[in-house]
Amino acid sequence: MTRWRIELAWDGREFLGWQRQPRGRTIQQVVEEALEQVLAGEQVRVEATGRTDAGVHCLQQVAAFDCAAERSPRGLVGGLNHHLPGDVACLAAEEAPAAFDPRRWTRRKTYRYRVLTRWARCPLRQGRVLHLGRPLELGAMQRAAEVLVGRHDMASFQARGCSASHTVRTIEELELRRVDDELQLDIVGHGFLRHQVRIVAGTLLEVGLGRQPPEWVARVLAARDRAQAGPTLPAHGLWLVAVDCPLSPR
Amino acid sequence: MTRWRIELAWDGREFLGWQRQPRGRTIQQVVEEALEQVLAGEQVRVEATGRTDAGVHCLQQVAAFDCAAERSPRGLVGGLNHHLPGDVACLAAEEAPAAFDPRRWTRRKTYRYRVLTRWARCPLRQGRVLHLGRPLELGAMQRAAEVLVGRHDMASFQARGCSASHTVRTIEELELRRVDDELQLDIVGHGFLRHQVRIVAGTLLEVGLGRQPPEWVARVLAARDRAQAGPTLPAHGLWLVAVDCPLSPR
Repeated sequence: MTRWRIELAWDGREFLGWQRQPRGRTIQQVVEEALEQVLAGEQVRVEATGRTDAGVHCLQQVAAFDCAAERSPRGLVGGLNHHLPGDVACLAAEEAPAAFDPRRWTRRKTYRYRVLTRWARCPLRQGRVLHLGRPLELGAMQRAAEVLVGRHDMASFQARGCSASHTVRTIEELELRRVDDELQLDIVGHGFLRHQVRIVAGTLLEVGLGRQPPEWVARVLAARDRAQAGPTLPAHGLWLVAVDCPLSPR
Repeated sequence: MTRWRIELAWDGREFLGWQRQPRGRTIQQVVEEALEQVLAGEQVRVEATGRTDAGVHCLQQVAAFDCAAERSPRGLVGGLNHHLPGDVACLAAEEAPAAFDPRRWTRRKTYRYRVLTRWARCPLRQGRVLHLGRPLELGAMQRAAEVLVGRHDMASFQARGCSASHTVRTIEELELRRVDDELQLDIVGHGFLRHQVRIVAGTLLEVGLGRQPPEWVARVLAARDRAQAGPTLPAHGLWLVAVDCPLSPR
């Protein structure tokens, strides 16, 4: 058996997220189906560094699988891109140690939330950015965001009904910037709670819209209560930009 | 009657181009249909600064129409974006002089041709860039492009079967650059022959791939023969980026 590390990218619009579902199209499913074609009928299970929600886009995810068939890295990438639908691609493949575990070996993930602030929507970014259509106060959002960086109990920023064993997470970096007519939030960390990035973005948006002062975010964080935070922004503005998951354990 | 100058953007994937056709969806048609909704049943004719081909994307086109109904610029933009399909948007509207003629009053147009050079395709740029999948020699392409800048008989770079009254055109700027994993060609001029940008890009690609030396492009230009130039690249890599068409005649 050979263990493989592969990198994937996808347009999230037509997917119910990463994980196989009883009904509906998922990235895991189409990748496993394409691999079955490439591996001459061999059925494999593909595991990623984590799950992503329906509608979320991805520029680089890392995943792994084991197979008996012998393939070259180039043959695997080329074969996958031939058999995958147009909205998923394999970017790279390399042989991995038998112990390679994408979830456990991940060091950092970078997510980006994109908000289009201009009034007119953009046909070329449809389903790729949140169209807010109003300006945001970048400086206020940046001041508000400072308190979130570091290791904190992020219970206020976790999806309702979700029960992670503990809610302490570390945000290594949180950067807000204007890029043309967009406001983009980049957030880097080892791992995130369910909907954490979308709730953090929704909370900072309340500040950017002038509905709350920057200091309010510190109170939201201290409350450890989802009801105190801002709304969960829609999935279609969220991008998994990069996953740092090398072939050596942490 | 009020004459309006409007700005439009669209994703070209599902359009047969700008101009109304007996069959098939065009940008002119969907904009005129949306205007009929916004103008309470009044039927208008919308004229742009020029036609664009099927599949070409647009970040900013300028167009004009006359109508009897009274509307505010904001009401017009908002109404249009409500009634237009998601792959077209109106970016701006302002009242124009009765003599405003988008085609004649245009000073410059900027087109961009985008080539994805990395081997793996990109699901998030599907139908938006030409996926070449091979590296290009940027320096050789830049040297080859120099001879095209200025006023020249561009007969070698005109679609076959097309008979413009004359084939002399001025390329004001032609810039080639790497942007991450893409090679982008930006070309600025007052007007272009049919398929000119796509044939220029296809010709420079022959140089970038090492199939022809940079000096070859000067011979292609001098030949005034379409058969001497490179292939017409696919429309889906072409973007109309900007149109300079102010409310004062040239």
